[in-house]
Amino acid sequence: MRVYLAGPDVFLPNAHEVLQRKCEVCAAYGFVGVSPFDAGGTPPPPTPDGGRAISRSNERLMRSADLVIANMTPFRGPSMDVGTAFEMGFMRALGRPVLGYSNMDDTLLARSIALCEGRQAGGHWVDAHGMLIEDFQLGDNLMLDGAVLESGSAVVRRATAREARFTDLTAFVACVDVAAALRRSGRLS
Amino acid sequence: MRVYLAGPDVFLPNAHEVLQRKCEVCAAYGFVGVSPFDAGGTPPPPTPDGGRAISRSNERLMRSADLVIANMTPFRGPSMDVGTAFEMGFMRALGRPVLGYSNMDDTLLARSIALCEGRQAGGHWVDAHGMLIEDFQLGDNLMLDGAVLESGSAVVRRATAREARFTDLTAFVACVDVAAALRRSGRLS
Repeated sequence: MRVYLAGPDVFLPNAHEVLQRKCEVCAAYGFVGVSPFDAGGTPPPPTPDGGRAISRSNERLMRSADLVIANMTPFRGPSMDVGTAFEMGFMRALGRPVLGYSNMDDTLLARSIALCEGRQAGGHWVDAHGMLIEDFQLGDNLMLDGAVLESGSAVVRRATAREARFTDLTAFVACVDVAAALRRSGRLS
Repeated sequence: MRVYLAGPDVFLPNAHEVLQRKCEVCAAYGFVGVSPFDAGGTPPPPTPDGGRAISRSNERLMRSADLVIANMTPFRGPSMDVGTAFEMGFMRALGRPVLGYSNMDDTLLARSIALCEGRQAGGHWVDAHGMLIEDFQLGDNLMLDGAVLESGSAVVRRATAREARFTDLTAFVACVDVAAALRRSGRLS
């Protein structure tokens, strides 16, 4: 069973090493990890066509996978990485299980209030633009947490130190463990 | 032809009015706008189950639509709204055209440098966590811009004043115009 490894891990200085470690965890559980780097080949040029080539390659790799484990750790703002969010939606529409983890364990509401000048207006929290901050006691936007819940799981959330936020694999390992449990119960087929 | 209207517009204080105006623009072009509010019914409670109910409802509405027009305007950070990004991935995997617009016309690189303590390291731009800021001369993450390019279009970008960032519909109208042109050329079937 092939697990697509979605996340901003690809932006780490030691991205290849971290994705290699994730593949090793998958292997220990009898899964095959699929990294965005698996496409191989020459790195595309820093142009729109280069970006498009990577997009096509990642879409192909997702179609080859049976499920996705997404790194949903908040990235450059109160929410997760948008490329990873796109990939969760992609796999969800294909009917493949969407699992996810985060290395922060607070709510979207708490982070948005802190980072986006949250204030009360009309009995709700709004941001600096006066836009509603959703409050469903979830870790991120309801489409993302919803896709994981509909897949028979919940987002695995573990607080980590700031400097280990994008490299700590404790929550990732717990998430692979969830995938193995779903497989045992026949919910990953 | 049904157009799913994805975007953070749902968080505006006058969300229903803005989505009504978008539906009117769609109608003027012979499209049927599909708003996340179309599900109707009682608003769900502010609990994880309530969020999950909206997620299910939005997924049903997306499956009922022929294409998506996404509001990709940067939201609470350098990138677009993550819920909208999820929905772009969802529609892309279903093979439905993904169109998008933004009310900012700068690049992801420029915004990330400004908002995330960008600095040079090893010939690349990195953020406060030392993570690479991608640079493909695109407006947002390559998966998002890539999906629009693969749909036969490009993201429509128009600079707007900050106070009109989430209500100005100039770029949205231009995007519906692009959809109409794709329909005329038989690329929306």
